[in-house]
Amino acid sequence: MSAAISKLISPRSVAVIGASADPGKTAGRPVAYLLKHGFPGRILPVNPKVESMGELPCYPDIASLPVVPDVAIVLLGAERATEAVRELAAMGCTAAIVLASGYAETGPHGAQRQEQLVEAAGPMRLLGPNTIGLVNLTDRIVLSPSGALEMDEFPIGGIGVVSQSGGILGALLSRAAARGIGMSKLISSSNEADLELADFIDFLADDAATRVIALYVESVRDPRRFRAACLKAARAGKPVVAFKVGRSEAGAQAAVSHTGAMAGSDRMYDALFRQVGVIRAQTFSDLLDIPAALATGRQLQGKRVAILTSTGGAGTLVSDDLGMAGFETPAPDEATAGALRALQTGSEAVLDRNPIDVTLAGLRPDLLRAAITALLASPVYDALVIVVGSSSLARPELMAGAIRDCLPLSSKPVLAYISPHAPHVGALLTREGVPAYAAAEACTAALQGMLHAAASPALSQDVEPRAMPGSSDTWPSGSLDEAQAKILFARFGVPCASERVVGNEQEARQAAQALQGHVALKILSSTITHKSDVGGVAVGLTEENIGSRLERMRAEVDAKTGTAPERFLVQQMVHGGAELILGMHRDPMGTALLLGMGGVAAELLQDTTMRLLPQTDEGLCGLSESQALAMVRELKSWPLLDGYRGRPKLDVAALARAIAAFSRMLAQLDTRLVEAEINPIIVLPEGQGVRAVDGVAVLG
Amino acid sequence: MSAAISKLISPRSVAVIGASADPGKTAGRPVAYLLKHGFPGRILPVNPKVESMGELPCYPDIASLPVVPDVAIVLLGAERATEAVRELAAMGCTAAIVLASGYAETGPHGAQRQEQLVEAAGPMRLLGPNTIGLVNLTDRIVLSPSGALEMDEFPIGGIGVVSQSGGILGALLSRAAARGIGMSKLISSSNEADLELADFIDFLADDAATRVIALYVESVRDPRRFRAACLKAARAGKPVVAFKVGRSEAGAQAAVSHTGAMAGSDRMYDALFRQVGVIRAQTFSDLLDIPAALATGRQLQGKRVAILTSTGGAGTLVSDDLGMAGFETPAPDEATAGALRALQTGSEAVLDRNPIDVTLAGLRPDLLRAAITALLASPVYDALVIVVGSSSLARPELMAGAIRDCLPLSSKPVLAYISPHAPHVGALLTREGVPAYAAAEACTAALQGMLHAAASPALSQDVEPRAMPGSSDTWPSGSLDEAQAKILFARFGVPCASERVVGNEQEARQAAQALQGHVALKILSSTITHKSDVGGVAVGLTEENIGSRLERMRAEVDAKTGTAPERFLVQQMVHGGAELILGMHRDPMGTALLLGMGGVAAELLQDTTMRLLPQTDEGLCGLSESQALAMVRELKSWPLLDGYRGRPKLDVAALARAIAAFSRMLAQLDTRLVEAEINPIIVLPEGQGVRAVDGVAVLG
Repeated sequence: MSAAISKLISPRSVAVIGASADPGKTAGRPVAYLLKHGFPGRILPVNPKVESMGELPCYPDIASLPVVPDVAIVLLGAERATEAVRELAAMGCTAAIVLASGYAETGPHGAQRQEQLVEAAGPMRLLGPNTIGLVNLTDRIVLSPSGALEMDEFPIGGIGVVSQSGGILGALLSRAAARGIGMSKLISSSNEADLELADFIDFLADDAATRVIALYVESVRDPRRFRAACLKAARAGKPVVAFKVGRSEAGAQAAVSHTGAMAGSDRMYDALFRQVGVIRAQTFSDLLDIPAALATGRQLQGKRVAILTSTGGAGTLVSDDLGMAGFETPAPDEATAGALRALQTGSEAVLDRNPIDVTLAGLRPDLLRAAITALLASPVYDALVIVVGSSSLARPELMAGAIRDCLPLSSKPVLAYISPHAPHVGALLTREGVPAYAAAEACTAALQGMLHAAASPALSQDVEPRAMPGSSDTWPSGSLDEAQAKILFARFGVPCASERVVGNEQEARQAAQALQGHVALKILSSTITHKSDVGGVAVGLTEENIGSRLERMRAEVDAKTGTAPERFLVQQMVHGGAELILGMHRDPMGTALLLGMGGVAAELLQDTTMRLLPQTDEGLCGLSESQALAMVRELKSWPLLDGYRGRPKLDVAALARAIAAFSRMLAQLDTRLVEAEINPIIVLPEGQGVRAVDGVAVLG
Repeated sequence: MSAAISKLISPRSVAVIGASADPGKTAGRPVAYLLKHGFPGRILPVNPKVESMGELPCYPDIASLPVVPDVAIVLLGAERATEAVRELAAMGCTAAIVLASGYAETGPHGAQRQEQLVEAAGPMRLLGPNTIGLVNLTDRIVLSPSGALEMDEFPIGGIGVVSQSGGILGALLSRAAARGIGMSKLISSSNEADLELADFIDFLADDAATRVIALYVESVRDPRRFRAACLKAARAGKPVVAFKVGRSEAGAQAAVSHTGAMAGSDRMYDALFRQVGVIRAQTFSDLLDIPAALATGRQLQGKRVAILTSTGGAGTLVSDDLGMAGFETPAPDEATAGALRALQTGSEAVLDRNPIDVTLAGLRPDLLRAAITALLASPVYDALVIVVGSSSLARPELMAGAIRDCLPLSSKPVLAYISPHAPHVGALLTREGVPAYAAAEACTAALQGMLHAAASPALSQDVEPRAMPGSSDTWPSGSLDEAQAKILFARFGVPCASERVVGNEQEARQAAQALQGHVALKILSSTITHKSDVGGVAVGLTEENIGSRLERMRAEVDAKTGTAPERFLVQQMVHGGAELILGMHRDPMGTALLLGMGGVAAELLQDTTMRLLPQTDEGLCGLSESQALAMVRELKSWPLLDGYRGRPKLDVAALARAIAAFSRMLAQLDTRLVEAEINPIIVLPEGQGVRAVDGVAVLG
């Protein structure tokens, strides 16, 4: 853990540059908040126009400060903030929080101003600019002027939040407080001129008060550091949950190759999150829903959920939504059903089904306690959801008390769904350790998040063989033609269909003879990408007819493009098997390998998957064969490769080897490779391997 | 509108059978609620143990009632309710509300009891049993003992709600009240022994106070009546929004044919809702989210949304989610941008982008009013979403006032997203006519619902040609073999591939000669469904080799199944084009026609669509060619039929004719047809038609 960040979050002295004596004003709030929540360290307001603030002496300028503060909150506008930062850095202040906006978020001029700010800070660490600051709830230290902090009691707990938006930070805090969800630290990293997401994930991974890390992400500036910090959090047993905006920009990116077109930048985040074990919140609400459940520290070991209700409709709602997400809601086992029946909760109670409906008559603390105990003890359930209906509202503490008594009996997750509008009941239960939800979808998302956290993928396998340092690359720059591209792919170990480059009838006949059987004939061009559109592809040819076909093709392409092709490819036809596509996508997040089902279906039905190539300190790494195999199994069409309905099993092992080979090529050539796609690569029946049949590559 | 239902909802006299004098008890609530909300009619409590309730005289039994009540609320247990219902019916009471449970919902014994109840009611109408009753909010008449009604003021407005769950009714009411969403009528139809969903939709379609109808659906008991009622509501210009539980049971149904397996019963509801213009709420929350927006009566004419915000993060959140759903958030046009800039809302305001960020400095009523006015007037926007941040919370009425002033200037929808926890602000805005949401997804769902309502599909076209009364069917019962099935399909107008039934080598040779070109050979069996699994299919045969192949096939199938096939089918091979599947699915909801892309991809990627065949008073109707064409266009693979990437355009018109023909067969044979599937039907290039190549049919 960085000592500077620790000091930033838990300072012993705080200077407030530009503090106002009026706590109603934004500039008056930091001092007011520090005082209100009993900051035990030194508060040093700086304002030339004020002598003192309450009992605190106020200093006319930074130079007059009696001590070097750990942290300075700079409330000045962007014009004066740079100078203040320079003075603070010069006196040895550890970190400054710069709230002013008007920096990189406004355009090039602001970006320049931001650079000056960073330069002025020198060795001093910066939070912001354009930040709303931070709140150390654990220690009740508020370093922020946010109006959202106008609360007497903070919801203190185990969730550490880092947000790249200041406004969102306030929204999260007020929503969490209303729901009884407790937090440890709230940090608005905003412009991230210096300290960024990864720094705070790293800090929270070490922070004893933090059990779960929640991120509001607009953009990961340094995927390599982000990856390292998330892996550290995973090792520390702290789940990381992220909500990312910018999902709908996905489609906006222009891309050259098919698979590239399908993989927008948001899919890169998806891949990154998945690969480093980050749980992705699908809605903003889930950024609280999921951490609230994870913060209980309870473990979800399976998908079988008991639903205890006194109101049929709401139980069905929960059960239905859980079912949609693949959870199971089995009926109680005989022993549990017996225990429930013995409670005699009412003549109409339905106890041998799930939801287990104790009816209104069952809403007595003793009965509830016994029912919860039985369900938590049952070997057929991994979790319990308790439905709170209107009838429980009159005396919610009875139900809360019953639940509280039962919680220590089991480490299984217990969640609540609140059917009527009753936020106070939800908050009460959440504070008691039973995260409560007003939407069935939220309850389901929370359980899914717990399942994800429990599965904790073997993250160590994410770091895979660094590509072998290859022979110095003597490849020319620019677009390779199809034959050259396949030579490149083959060099890295991707098996390609046999083929010959020919220029005339005679060579074509010889090639067809050498390749045996039916062959395909294609024009060879590094500029024409859709060969068949210009009549540049013919299939099913033989030694006998290939010659005349070649001349006819030459004439047809000439007529359509104005240029007669000089070179052709004669290629062995590959029969049977399935067509797939291997491609790449590169954007600021890194380089990804894409795998998709081939043919037009790939584009129409988007049956694709991808992996970001791990970027380590040693450089870009390829994927292992087991990772490649995992990708193949993620395809919806996977059964087609796996002997579906009596079809032959295809050579998936060879496909995995080819994917790993292709990934090594991406890793080794790195940014030299501008574009690469194999479309299709044909997977033959088991033992017969794969063949790259067509492909493109562009070298930079 | 049924006079009895009108009386049930707006009675002038209400008897309460089994009323308690203690308003704290469930049985005491109906009288207490009626009094509290000033019921102007006569209240007639019946209880042999009580003389009076407050100033109301109490009657010892039904026979002693001084007048015949319009409505009786029966609070007795199931044992005594039947007798009370019988007495009420005998005296001429219009309708009874039976609250007791223990009827059909509990099993066969309860179902029998329910039948007795219906029998006892005779001509008297019944609501329930197992109902929580109803609330006529428009007229402040409460006919329910629900604890959820413990509120002094009801949220009165234009949403009429029918729920098949009583508990859910209470949840909806309390949630609506908290959000400032107003309702007209709340009816719990529950067991629907008599009055059901369709009756109340029909009533609400006529009810002047109701603008939008919201349904909580567990099961549509009579799709024909439901359809008629929804079409009536559509004609009355009242959108119907439905949330249905039981979605995850979809996969549980066993089905014989491929497409049947893909169409669970929940998809039948989807089809029904779509075909009668019902907007399906995807989450329970949306059952309030969408009606709240529709109840404003504002019209959404397009997909372009302006987002006005003072807090960047939340604006992005809304914009991102709208983008995911296909909404557009274009930048302001020049005139609008100019008008916004003239407001000088602050040096950092970003006014030429969307979200339009006026920053904190712009949070003044005059500025807000001017900005809202400019955005509503802009021709590039169809709707406005106003983001409310933490900073607006201190004086929400300022913002609400500004918005209120602007609303009359435009009929475009105006919605609000509330970023921090601030339910009071949301309720205030909602009551002012600006439905407010705490989740971006809810805001998006509301706009989608408005778009759906505005699109108002031409529902009249839903009633399509009644199948021609055919020649009396002389088909045998049972499984048809492939040849018979195709004869059946062809009779109804589905073009089939040419073929001959043969029994030996010589006949096979003759058939191959007659059919010309390559042919396929298949065993003909009404029991073996997967012919290729037993070696019963061979393709690409000619007159020369078909004879020996037939004998080899006979031997191979014999070896695999123990029975040597006696009959074979020789079939013209159909080349080129695309393979599709036509199938049917029947369950209690009705009969549906299914269309899917053919081959294994259909099952793996589930590229299918379906239509319920309209059930009218005259019987089952087929689909028109235009409806058939609409189905084809719904397939994700539609581009493959439409000249995708230089492929030939396929004969979609012929496909639509074939689908319509297949639908006429389903309609005419109705329940006689147990199963029918064409797999594949091949669609050839334009002008060349379609051919059914293989199929099954089972007649009952």
